[in-house]
Amino acid sequence: MGRLLDQIDSPRDLETLSLPDLERLCAEIREKIIETVSANGGHLSSNLGVVELTVALHRSFRVPEDQIVWDVGHQCYTHKILTGRRSRIGTIRKRDGLSGYPNRQESRYDPFQSGHSSTSISAALGLAEAKKLRAEPGHVVAVIGDGALTGGLAYEGLNNAGRLNRNFIVVLNDNKMSISRNVGSMARYLAYMRTKPGYWKMKDNVEQTLNGMPLLGKPLHGLLKKSKRLLKQILYNSTLFEDMGFNYYGPFDGHDLPQLLEVFENAKKINRPVLLHVLTSKGKGYPFAEKDPGGFHGVSAFDIETGEPDSAGGSNFSGVFGEELCNLAAQDDRICAITAAMQLGTGLTPFKKRFPERFFDVGIAEGHAVTFAGGLAAGGLMPVCAVYSTFLQRGYDQIIHDAALQGLHVLLAVDRAGIVGEDGETHQGVFDVPFLSSIPNVTVFAPTYYQELRQMLRAAIYECSGVVAVRYPRGKELYQPPGFRCMRMPFVLHGDPAAAIAVVTYGRTFSQACLAQERLAASGVKVQLIKLNRVRPVDPGAVEAARAAGHVFFFEEGMLQGGVGEHFGYLLGQAGFAGRYVLRGVDDCFVKHATMRQSLEGLGLDETGIFQTIVSECGL
Amino acid sequence: MGRLLDQIDSPRDLETLSLPDLERLCAEIREKIIETVSANGGHLSSNLGVVELTVALHRSFRVPEDQIVWDVGHQCYTHKILTGRRSRIGTIRKRDGLSGYPNRQESRYDPFQSGHSSTSISAALGLAEAKKLRAEPGHVVAVIGDGALTGGLAYEGLNNAGRLNRNFIVVLNDNKMSISRNVGSMARYLAYMRTKPGYWKMKDNVEQTLNGMPLLGKPLHGLLKKSKRLLKQILYNSTLFEDMGFNYYGPFDGHDLPQLLEVFENAKKINRPVLLHVLTSKGKGYPFAEKDPGGFHGVSAFDIETGEPDSAGGSNFSGVFGEELCNLAAQDDRICAITAAMQLGTGLTPFKKRFPERFFDVGIAEGHAVTFAGGLAAGGLMPVCAVYSTFLQRGYDQIIHDAALQGLHVLLAVDRAGIVGEDGETHQGVFDVPFLSSIPNVTVFAPTYYQELRQMLRAAIYECSGVVAVRYPRGKELYQPPGFRCMRMPFVLHGDPAAAIAVVTYGRTFSQACLAQERLAASGVKVQLIKLNRVRPVDPGAVEAARAAGHVFFFEEGMLQGGVGEHFGYLLGQAGFAGRYVLRGVDDCFVKHATMRQSLEGLGLDETGIFQTIVSECGL
Repeated sequence: MGRLLDQIDSPRDLETLSLPDLERLCAEIREKIIETVSANGGHLSSNLGVVELTVALHRSFRVPEDQIVWDVGHQCYTHKILTGRRSRIGTIRKRDGLSGYPNRQESRYDPFQSGHSSTSISAALGLAEAKKLRAEPGHVVAVIGDGALTGGLAYEGLNNAGRLNRNFIVVLNDNKMSISRNVGSMARYLAYMRTKPGYWKMKDNVEQTLNGMPLLGKPLHGLLKKSKRLLKQILYNSTLFEDMGFNYYGPFDGHDLPQLLEVFENAKKINRPVLLHVLTSKGKGYPFAEKDPGGFHGVSAFDIETGEPDSAGGSNFSGVFGEELCNLAAQDDRICAITAAMQLGTGLTPFKKRFPERFFDVGIAEGHAVTFAGGLAAGGLMPVCAVYSTFLQRGYDQIIHDAALQGLHVLLAVDRAGIVGEDGETHQGVFDVPFLSSIPNVTVFAPTYYQELRQMLRAAIYECSGVVAVRYPRGKELYQPPGFRCMRMPFVLHGDPAAAIAVVTYGRTFSQACLAQERLAASGVKVQLIKLNRVRPVDPGAVEAARAAGHVFFFEEGMLQGGVGEHFGYLLGQAGFAGRYVLRGVDDCFVKHATMRQSLEGLGLDETGIFQTIVSECGL
Repeated sequence: MGRLLDQIDSPRDLETLSLPDLERLCAEIREKIIETVSANGGHLSSNLGVVELTVALHRSFRVPEDQIVWDVGHQCYTHKILTGRRSRIGTIRKRDGLSGYPNRQESRYDPFQSGHSSTSISAALGLAEAKKLRAEPGHVVAVIGDGALTGGLAYEGLNNAGRLNRNFIVVLNDNKMSISRNVGSMARYLAYMRTKPGYWKMKDNVEQTLNGMPLLGKPLHGLLKKSKRLLKQILYNSTLFEDMGFNYYGPFDGHDLPQLLEVFENAKKINRPVLLHVLTSKGKGYPFAEKDPGGFHGVSAFDIETGEPDSAGGSNFSGVFGEELCNLAAQDDRICAITAAMQLGTGLTPFKKRFPERFFDVGIAEGHAVTFAGGLAAGGLMPVCAVYSTFLQRGYDQIIHDAALQGLHVLLAVDRAGIVGEDGETHQGVFDVPFLSSIPNVTVFAPTYYQELRQMLRAAIYECSGVVAVRYPRGKELYQPPGFRCMRMPFVLHGDPAAAIAVVTYGRTFSQACLAQERLAASGVKVQLIKLNRVRPVDPGAVEAARAAGHVFFFEEGMLQGGVGEHFGYLLGQAGFAGRYVLRGVDDCFVKHATMRQSLEGLGLDETGIFQTIVSECGL
């Protein structure tokens, strides 16, 4: 008997399958996902959790006429497999392959792109209003996780969608945790909802439900004595979501295919916004992932049999950050750490263990993280907000309004700064330097090496005021030339001070530039490297050092527009520089998924690219 | 009998006043506010609404040991009057005078600065956690309006604060509208809560309350038949806020001083997060404002007797935008308009009247506004998102992630771009050009004149793709030199093409530059003006035109760091320009409140500043 999966070329092919066949299909999809992620890396736990949910959605709804919007989107593998991308699933997250997230350019079955959290309800509402105004048929479904529900954007979406007077479906995919275990009242509320004794059928008639309950013979008064909560629970499915304008149904078992199919069929018929609470298990079907769903959230390639990663772990920038912050916090009880649901990813687990009362996981709520940090600073503490560069975009206004403007001393630990690799265009950390640079009085450091990261954290806390960012890349420190010493200086010179060619750069790119310099030196071409440790404000000495060269190159692993390079060029001009200035960075484009190395190569920001740019621009 | 108000030099002076005296004081404060705002302009309705609330807060809580965080902050006049700033209240919103918002630099009674909406709960939570970690006594109170509660940041704050196991007080100042009448499920929910038959006393004992209700004799079953809502209403104060972890009490009459005092005294004793629902009337005590609270929200100086503004209204950029959008929408039914609670301010009232089904007021939720617009565009419509520059900062990530990245055609109508005047540093529209410029594939237009605004809106919709911003200043078009014609070109040359001095600029600054040019011409100095209509991408022709001059000046009413000027300087350098390049803009600072004219003068961006910069830099 051949694999059922091999016969599924479009979601329409699900229509003829029997229930047992659909369940067999789920098992085959699960295998495919484990095989794919073990080879390519990717999001394992979340994808294994939604296999039945996705199959049921595609059996019940007719895409692309009906539209499914996946929040965050890292759970879309089954969706991709079912929507004509089965044969290419092995290319996922690889250069020129499928994206790890829904992508409008990739398929007409992806109505909206995602990658960041909490956007699905707002986007789906836009699609739904468009359908209405264009008099087009079809349902719109937003699938959002419990973690994403901690983001304010999701609430803004609920608040607006709750007033619709027609069908609009939100599937709450409750896997009982966001990327780290989630926090806040909403998490507690959902935990409470999960404990309800039975599954509620899709009935809008409260009376009928109540009649079936033995407790109801008792008078209200007596019942109240027992429990205020209990009564609420019995009378109403969920008051919070109902108060927000949704009909709430659930919780349902997200791995019970027949039930899911019944639920979706019924949900379609309701002419109101509907919230379906579905419980799923992250990592379902792969024991290693079920046991450690956090560890298997976003993973590198691993061995299927053992669950062990292909390459050994070892230290990285996030780990060093977490370790050094513990060192600092042990000496200084003003230091607090804040993460937006990324305790693991930002290396804060040791901090949480050692200083639980000074550790705050605020949920996927970067805006709150920054404003809350502002409040802590106003109260006399020293908050350190550790956020990935791409997610810090969500706190832009808060950095301006709730920290910088008030001169509050807040440290932003900007992780995953620069090219991130396989997660691709939604996750590149290429905007933080431009957006931080335009905010008055902000200081930005960019370490190349672990030791510098430690030095800069210390400097940020004890030698700076106002908002200070320390930005560091994903992964490990790279090449350090022999004899190079990490110093607490705004900039460092390396190479030949008398060279006619100067290369200015910062962060990880310095390692690549050193390698290029050594290749040039081997050909007898002398280059001076100017490494900016502090990229904002740029030290006048660095400009002065560059001015002496006839040819100045600036390489930047970030947006060229509004980056340090443009500013440096301006400063050079003001200093009377009349030579040639060559700037390379991410030039007005989004950077697609590939390995980090491939992306840097494509951008000309690796050793070879830097070498060749210098050779060709100098006519060597 | 002298004025009581004259004896209040600090909040401590309230302690000895009797209730009748406190009520007399409220009347005196109201008079003072009307007098002040009629002279200075400012936020009248919101301030008149919270007089009793503020007096009660300062009588019940001991600032600065206790801390009060005002959301948005435009309702802080009574607070300022009571906290040692009475004598300076006449300077409010004036240069070197008091700020119209709470300000940490201004007073130790202002624990956190505001201006933007929905920050108070997050900031107050930070202050509260700091108090705990530092073992400092005192209560923290956040005062937030119903409008601000539509912002996702407020929800993120509630979600995090709801898990505290100690006193934390949120006062929901429900004046039944945000700046425009608010929208969404939360507004409906609050409207419902307001209809409750009586005021609830501060009792946590449900039974006692129930015993007092005649309905309770009936069995539950019969009651349910009557109304599901009614039962919920009788049994629980508010399930939504309770589900979010807060003890809810209310609604209370926000103008009933004795009741407010009792409520606050009781609230202090609860070792949990508490939400107090207080109803206030915007404009209370000034009939003109009570009748038209929206019109008196943020006002210019007006005549106390008639309520009429001092200067005649007439057209402005917002009005022209709204009018032209109606013209376009009449011809093109794909065009939709979105506002984030600023229907009036953004000039969209006529659009709402003519095209109600294509008009969306999403509440104070700029993030949602942009993502929702992305969804509309993905669904085949042409969304136009009209947001003030300073508030669009809240949608930065959404512009990147939910629009630009997906190549969705979304028009951002960026109102109040540039210096805004009296609202000061929290409201300046000086960041939009930097943050929009660093986003790939975004087009930015900057009209100087109404006719250009009309032309650019049309171009943005019909000649561009992806995200397009049209940014225009607060107020009216300024000087247009004789013979100048508005043209649909990326840039326009004006003045002497053979001049050795070129002045590059855009938007409103062009008017100032023309006046400066005319003064220079009178002295025999020739200048060519290069006016950028499209500031991103910069047209190579504009760079070419500037390159010919020996001296190039760039004047920019926005952040210098990351602005168009730095980029233009870079392009000039690449084009081989070897002359002198002088750039003036907002240089790494926040711009305080003053009149628009004073601010531009202070920045050297008015006629005289431009004239003098050219004279001094050229040694004329």
